[in-house]
Amino acid sequence: MSAAGSNSAGRLLGVGVGPGDPELLTLKAMRALGEADVIAHFAKAGRASHSRATVAQHLRAGVIELPLLYPVTTELPKCSDAYRDAIGDFFDQAAGAIAAHLHAGRVVAVICEGDPLFYGSYMHLHARLAPRFATEIIAGVTGMSGCWSAAGMPIAQGDDIFTVLPATLPEDELARRLADADAAVVMKVGRHLPKLRRALECSGRLERAIYVERGTMADAVTIPLAAKPDDDAPYFAVVLVPGWEGGP
Amino acid sequence: MSAAGSNSAGRLLGVGVGPGDPELLTLKAMRALGEADVIAHFAKAGRASHSRATVAQHLRAGVIELPLLYPVTTELPKCSDAYRDAIGDFFDQAAGAIAAHLHAGRVVAVICEGDPLFYGSYMHLHARLAPRFATEIIAGVTGMSGCWSAAGMPIAQGDDIFTVLPATLPEDELARRLADADAAVVMKVGRHLPKLRRALECSGRLERAIYVERGTMADAVTIPLAAKPDDDAPYFAVVLVPGWEGGP
Repeated sequence: MSAAGSNSAGRLLGVGVGPGDPELLTLKAMRALGEADVIAHFAKAGRASHSRATVAQHLRAGVIELPLLYPVTTELPKCSDAYRDAIGDFFDQAAGAIAAHLHAGRVVAVICEGDPLFYGSYMHLHARLAPRFATEIIAGVTGMSGCWSAAGMPIAQGDDIFTVLPATLPEDELARRLADADAAVVMKVGRHLPKLRRALECSGRLERAIYVERGTMADAVTIPLAAKPDDDAPYFAVVLVPGWEGGP
Repeated sequence: MSAAGSNSAGRLLGVGVGPGDPELLTLKAMRALGEADVIAHFAKAGRASHSRATVAQHLRAGVIELPLLYPVTTELPKCSDAYRDAIGDFFDQAAGAIAAHLHAGRVVAVICEGDPLFYGSYMHLHARLAPRFATEIIAGVTGMSGCWSAAGMPIAQGDDIFTVLPATLPEDELARRLADADAAVVMKVGRHLPKLRRALECSGRLERAIYVERGTMADAVTIPLAAKPDDDAPYFAVVLVPGWEGGP
């Protein structure tokens, strides 16, 4: 392994830490935490990093921590050039900070909620750094696996067609896609829940839909969406629509 | 924990062991292996169980092993009543064998490739046993996460629509669904590769498609599908179509 201060370039590790339960860390992620000189993690300014909290009890004494703090862009529309520029600059700077450690010969582990290459910020660093440095990806348990496992709900079987949809889609497109799949996970629910509820009703899937909030935490909420009395939902809530309609 | 021979009913654990790399076992799966009185695993008669091979080095001395051997149904068409009956009887018998251990107060871990509730045989046991016995699901790293991680290929980002498709679909439906998603994983490739290749071409996705064979093994094959010179593919090969077309 490269050591801090050696002349050879270091190594970049994209480390999936799973959905939040520290026991869902893999042995490979544990090894990465043991060998990394630098642990980098994304977080919002002023908020604790979820991925860091997941691995906190396994951090090596003396490890260098590199928090990557998202810029405050709440005032910018997400489709604007200004937003794109601010986010692009942020990832450039974050990649630059990591590259400096890699040039110094250090092993840098970027810890990622869920799986590093499935809907995560890490891949912005990967695109910038993997062409230039030795890189290893350590797959992780996804947040959605954590949710359906906590709910004890088989999600897809046999030749089921499974899809992941953002709740940000227009209502008619959500309805069309829900009707067109056997099984679905809808992410980023938040304020889109009333629209999603209508789309599920329209596609005939409301009765099967399960609402999950803080899926793998001790205070998880898992209820049939049809039984949820209000439309309050945090951004990270998900709705699961199980397939396997033929049953066992 | 329930002990063998106690009067209280035991506990059923559906344990994801990940895509094949023993290091992708979670700490929670390791704990389950340590506390289980019985380890059950699916296998084809005369073949080694993949999930058992993944955990072999962590099996406790003296643990009871319960192989669940699929019936030989190769002579039966998969849509036939005879096939459905044979498979249904097999899962009934497997669930019965596990129930006997649970009634004896034992902890039974069913070890599952990938994630227990995402396209796996375990859920046939879950449907039969979870209503009657205390059950816990331990999420695992899916085979597809293992594949895109080994390939170092970001699969989906932001508001991408991601889908999982079986290559058994008719060509025009494959093409329609590939064109309709940002990112896709096509499973069960095998003899369907020529058809899948045409569907990818027709949907404009052939250039992005990556062919993966034995994704997380030391002898993995990962090449752009367009560069694969033949149409030979095992049943468990997958084709990955990455999203995130906007790039970083």
